[in-house]
Amino acid sequence: MADLDLPQGPEPTYDKIVAGYHTFHYAHDFELEWGGTLPGFDIAWESWGEPNAAFDNVVLVHTGLSASSHAHSQPDNPNPGWWEGFIGPGAAIDTDRYWVLCTNLIGGCYGSTGPSSPNPNTGEPWATDFPIVTVKDMIRAQLLMLDHLGVKRLHASVGASLGGMQSLMVAALAPERVDRIASISACMRSYPQAIALRFMQRQAVMKDADWNEGRYYGRSFPHRGMKVARGIGTITYRSGPEWQKRFGRTREEGVPRLDADFQVESYLAHQGEKFCLQYDANSYLYISKAMDLFDLEPENGLGGPTINDIQCPSLVIGVTSDILFPVRQQRELAEALRKAGSEVSYLEIDAPYGHDTFLIERETVGDAVKAHLERES
Amino acid sequence: MADLDLPQGPEPTYDKIVAGYHTFHYAHDFELEWGGTLPGFDIAWESWGEPNAAFDNVVLVHTGLSASSHAHSQPDNPNPGWWEGFIGPGAAIDTDRYWVLCTNLIGGCYGSTGPSSPNPNTGEPWATDFPIVTVKDMIRAQLLMLDHLGVKRLHASVGASLGGMQSLMVAALAPERVDRIASISACMRSYPQAIALRFMQRQAVMKDADWNEGRYYGRSFPHRGMKVARGIGTITYRSGPEWQKRFGRTREEGVPRLDADFQVESYLAHQGEKFCLQYDANSYLYISKAMDLFDLEPENGLGGPTINDIQCPSLVIGVTSDILFPVRQQRELAEALRKAGSEVSYLEIDAPYGHDTFLIERETVGDAVKAHLERES
Repeated sequence: MADLDLPQGPEPTYDKIVAGYHTFHYAHDFELEWGGTLPGFDIAWESWGEPNAAFDNVVLVHTGLSASSHAHSQPDNPNPGWWEGFIGPGAAIDTDRYWVLCTNLIGGCYGSTGPSSPNPNTGEPWATDFPIVTVKDMIRAQLLMLDHLGVKRLHASVGASLGGMQSLMVAALAPERVDRIASISACMRSYPQAIALRFMQRQAVMKDADWNEGRYYGRSFPHRGMKVARGIGTITYRSGPEWQKRFGRTREEGVPRLDADFQVESYLAHQGEKFCLQYDANSYLYISKAMDLFDLEPENGLGGPTINDIQCPSLVIGVTSDILFPVRQQRELAEALRKAGSEVSYLEIDAPYGHDTFLIERETVGDAVKAHLERES
Repeated sequence: MADLDLPQGPEPTYDKIVAGYHTFHYAHDFELEWGGTLPGFDIAWESWGEPNAAFDNVVLVHTGLSASSHAHSQPDNPNPGWWEGFIGPGAAIDTDRYWVLCTNLIGGCYGSTGPSSPNPNTGEPWATDFPIVTVKDMIRAQLLMLDHLGVKRLHASVGASLGGMQSLMVAALAPERVDRIASISACMRSYPQAIALRFMQRQAVMKDADWNEGRYYGRSFPHRGMKVARGIGTITYRSGPEWQKRFGRTREEGVPRLDADFQVESYLAHQGEKFCLQYDANSYLYISKAMDLFDLEPENGLGGPTINDIQCPSLVIGVTSDILFPVRQQRELAEALRKAGSEVSYLEIDAPYGHDTFLIERETVGDAVKAHLERES
């Protein structure tokens, strides 16, 4: 982000989030699925553990919508990562055995090329001139990075939410390079209700006058819209039963206020306050749109890979309280993978944490991932 | 609305929505549950059918969050009402038998006193000086209107969503005046997830720079925030399975857009466009807040009536696809009513239309209401 001049609006604190990552720079034109070309791109990546001599112990961990490559602490950035408890020596993803890689997505704002990056043609941030990117584009870019690192095969591709979509896409796009995949709280294709929920988040940003058609760099950032967007997002990541237990109907003393008043409201407001300083609004729009466009259904008419291209063993995990990617979509995914010829392990977790269960339940989610990584391919 | 001067922003088209209603004017101070006083108020009301000689055939129909008193067409306003198919000669609520009344809520903007009404102390719209109103306040105001009309007892009190909360509140607050109630897709108390979903709608409005702390009358209206709010609301009123059938993944031809692109997105955008011209933003805030504050749980510590005060026979209807008032809340409500001593008829409808099923399913919802109205009390 050092290239950007952000003098006016409260500046996002990206620097606190990410540090000490490596950068893969691709110096050629990169054509995108829906047209448009990136004249080169960067991917930020981090790793834990060591590659073995055969380079066949690589586990690629994919992030969700807004996470950085910092899945776990490391010497150059000792802050806890977003999957801290799931990665490490002896952990579900065992760094004594595997070389674990995580990247920031193309379109993101944590070191990879995205809308806040300078457009080489103008020197100004891309903003909404950034082309539409898809999950397929993200994976094609990742595969170029793997080529560069000399990684020919993945022991496993693992991810949740958007990361679960990416896990599937790697195995569909490059089946010869993936030995096993895990897709947690994801889907075979995005459904209209999830699209609707993400659309309203994008609308909240785009209707903020400060969004300014995406050209807010160096001006006021659309923080109000981002707060609303993150609040909506947070509702879709957790669950009613969890909040009933955690917050109930507790509210401020005295006369009710139209603004944050119930505990659950203060919690949502706090989530929004934090997030709007930590993530670029345009990255949010582009990556959320990529999720909507995700479709591996066999008859999708898109000409790309489909679920039927996935042949390796797969682990599919769903959570009964997930309202964003309901378990019926996990069942559909598992069934489609079975039909495609994948050996499928299917796990349905009855936890109250909704979509975010993959960040919380180290026993259920972690144990299943561990067992899957250790299975014979 | 004729009293208000709204020269600048696109003016809401309230006039197209409501016409030919009666106005009950209460000319005394009206103290509200959370403090604050209305120096008199108006309630807009409409009716269908005729009172019988004993005045004991009155069915009070309560509205949801944003509906007017126009539940059914009538000579002075032949436009279809919001429950057109459920009310009429021979219909579920049979106007050959019952005198059917419907009011606009206190806090609303369709003829009843609300934040857009002139504050008699200043001559200006109340805006956010309007005091916090509750479902109990709404019902206390309605009871004053019934007194004025000479209606001592209700044959029935019927409503869905916020209307279902009101139905319960009438029977809790004035058990001696209600023979039977129907509560459709409502709850005994509001739960944190529903509060969260309404909070984000309010935040979308309040973070619109045009909201201006509620003082937007005579200026630009916060239409952008209202569009986002209505989009979020619409998601909570319908269901994923319905949208999968209705819209699937159909989208515009060509390169995807960050703005409305999928059919479900255009649908949500259209709902928002319509609504922001038809409803006052501050009314939306106040009435949505009243829903959050609704709590008839016996141990709520509020000192008001509780579910245990309800003794008359009750009909509770829930819909399996309702994400705003899930069926577990209907079961809880039915159970609590049974414990309180009410004879409860409980119906769980397996329809794909979510919360809005009460506007759509004339057979299931209508037949159950009809049977309940005709039962011996």
